[in-house]
Amino acid sequence: MANPFIKRYLMTAGPTPIPPEVSEAMAQPVLYHRAPAFIEVYSRCLARLKDVFQTDGDVLCFAASGSGAMESAAANLVRPGEPALVASCGKFGERWVELCDAFGARTRHLDAGWGNRVEPADLERELADTGAKVVFTTLSETSTGVVNDVQALTQVAHEAGALIAVDAVSGLGAVPIPQDDWGVDVVVAGSQKALMCPPGLAFAGVGEAALEYAAGSDAPRYYYDWERTAKGQRKDPPDSPFTPAVTLFMGLDVALGMIEDEGLEQVFERHRVLGRAARAAVRALDLELFGPEDENANVVTAIRLPEGIDGASIPKLMRDRFGVTIAGGQGRLKDRIARIAHCGYFGAVDILTTFAAFELALREAGHDLELGAGVGAAQAVFLEAGVPAPAAA
Amino acid sequence: MANPFIKRYLMTAGPTPIPPEVSEAMAQPVLYHRAPAFIEVYSRCLARLKDVFQTDGDVLCFAASGSGAMESAAANLVRPGEPALVASCGKFGERWVELCDAFGARTRHLDAGWGNRVEPADLERELADTGAKVVFTTLSETSTGVVNDVQALTQVAHEAGALIAVDAVSGLGAVPIPQDDWGVDVVVAGSQKALMCPPGLAFAGVGEAALEYAAGSDAPRYYYDWERTAKGQRKDPPDSPFTPAVTLFMGLDVALGMIEDEGLEQVFERHRVLGRAARAAVRALDLELFGPEDENANVVTAIRLPEGIDGASIPKLMRDRFGVTIAGGQGRLKDRIARIAHCGYFGAVDILTTFAAFELALREAGHDLELGAGVGAAQAVFLEAGVPAPAAA
Repeated sequence: MANPFIKRYLMTAGPTPIPPEVSEAMAQPVLYHRAPAFIEVYSRCLARLKDVFQTDGDVLCFAASGSGAMESAAANLVRPGEPALVASCGKFGERWVELCDAFGARTRHLDAGWGNRVEPADLERELADTGAKVVFTTLSETSTGVVNDVQALTQVAHEAGALIAVDAVSGLGAVPIPQDDWGVDVVVAGSQKALMCPPGLAFAGVGEAALEYAAGSDAPRYYYDWERTAKGQRKDPPDSPFTPAVTLFMGLDVALGMIEDEGLEQVFERHRVLGRAARAAVRALDLELFGPEDENANVVTAIRLPEGIDGASIPKLMRDRFGVTIAGGQGRLKDRIARIAHCGYFGAVDILTTFAAFELALREAGHDLELGAGVGAAQAVFLEAGVPAPAAA
Repeated sequence: MANPFIKRYLMTAGPTPIPPEVSEAMAQPVLYHRAPAFIEVYSRCLARLKDVFQTDGDVLCFAASGSGAMESAAANLVRPGEPALVASCGKFGERWVELCDAFGARTRHLDAGWGNRVEPADLERELADTGAKVVFTTLSETSTGVVNDVQALTQVAHEAGALIAVDAVSGLGAVPIPQDDWGVDVVVAGSQKALMCPPGLAFAGVGEAALEYAAGSDAPRYYYDWERTAKGQRKDPPDSPFTPAVTLFMGLDVALGMIEDEGLEQVFERHRVLGRAARAAVRALDLELFGPEDENANVVTAIRLPEGIDGASIPKLMRDRFGVTIAGGQGRLKDRIARIAHCGYFGAVDILTTFAAFELALREAGHDLELGAGVGAAQAVFLEAGVPAPAAA
């Protein structure tokens, strides 16, 4: 049996830790989805989601993993036989390729490479070359920690007369993506990242131009058909075409209320300070970031593990010896990087906890380092910034 | 503000009430989906689902509403331009028509009519006429309370060389559908009915023949592609291709454990007695059942509301005055029927509570009846059968 005195800390970029108030709300008796008590929760969630997406348009909700919202974008925007342009820089960007292929696009894949950002100039060239009418890309690439310049990519897409759909599953609510200000046509997200809920809800913020373009396509879709869900959500009172995941909405309502209380700008600022502290810790440990040094890469910090140690052992040691669950690398980065998350319900002490365990694990795995150096560097960042914590319980 | 002394009773056929142990499990700290602690829960759920589906085949899990599992059947089994036969008898059966249409089938709709059962002989005739290779139908039609004879329908489908996919969303775990014994090719279900969990998980029990047939179709699908999910779930340890709804699985594990403890046959027997008691109450109140008198219609009892009263007022009075939430009619049955659920976490007292409030609401709406008559008739059934209750907390 597991040692009960190894307390458990969830430090992954999805699922992320859940505030106790959110867990409590989800443990309340289940509501009938057509009862006034649920309709009140549901309506408030729809309104609050618009605030977080920073849009006046529809934020469509699906009972699904985040990939379900991505599929909704492919199912509604891909026209079989026509070109679709995917601009990727990691595992989740590559999922767009699989989705576009599955829905019959002539997919052009602009692969910036794992750990790089997508360059707007490259997108411009590929758009001119393919004449694609839709671009699929990523805000925060969870597999590498890279955050793309979605504002610039959107501008390039629009100048070429294309729509842009952005996977913001791990980024929304952690780093800015003001949908209406930047004119991003489609922003997809999930409940289990910066929105501080368990996995199971997926969202698509869909602007008018994307809705119109979708209406012109008859590619097969039903569950993820935007028009069906938009029609339901626009009713008074709003109505979901399929039974909504009521307990997750009850939690989401509380989580979105916490974001509202903290203030979206302050939420972004907290993530900025957490990211800065994590990067300072990495440097102080004489380790390398995976991916470019970037003031905006504030969702997950990917660290290149030192040569000569067993990469797989680090997350395992951290979890089994110290109770701290972080993620290692995925796909081609398996056993080569460690990923320390700071999106959602994370405060300063979470970063210190994680680096304290990370340092111990590295040392146990045989890597020479100065104990406390990473923690100390992060502490210094927090002291300078004023310690950031999530909205009070 | 709502009167806090009106206690709340959820008596709908989905979402259904949740055992407190299940709520408690879902309020535990969220687990990382690749951590051993979650893999243990996930593996146990996959095994226990096979027990409830009574199959050795795959029970594929999706983060979705029940309709998501229905969509998986359409996306994997419909071949564009080929005939698909839908045998329906209510709102949810008609969803199969919409799904088959959306996925490009030449859909033939055998409509038995709301409140009737699908007749095997009619299915046989339509199969001969269309040569359809896939039949889509319903076990328990939640909109009317009707339970179809899936064993007979399966036999007819197989004799005609067709596969059969059955929407058992509200029926699975309430009335028998032994998948392997009956040879049902595809059984779809959801977490929020007899499985005693909140909505958000959808399941498809898929036999080998259906998997093979699906492999021969290249209709667009990704999130609901059976092969992708089967491949992940068959790994050791099993792995979901998309982030699973971890808290719902934590609840499901507990709920399936309760079903195991009670024993599946006893679970069915409890539903039989609950259904019998509900029908006895209806008769004692001189009201009419909607649909045929049927010893197997043990998921939801639909009651024709008496002429001359405002049908919409009954569920509303029950909820607002007495805190008891039942469902009215849907679609063409709006305001014409009341639906009293008994699928999942329901025991004898729930039926008595519901009829007690139902009698009061009818009286308040101006219908003359003998107070206590329905309750008394149900009580008599329970006394005779031995009072059924869900597995003890």
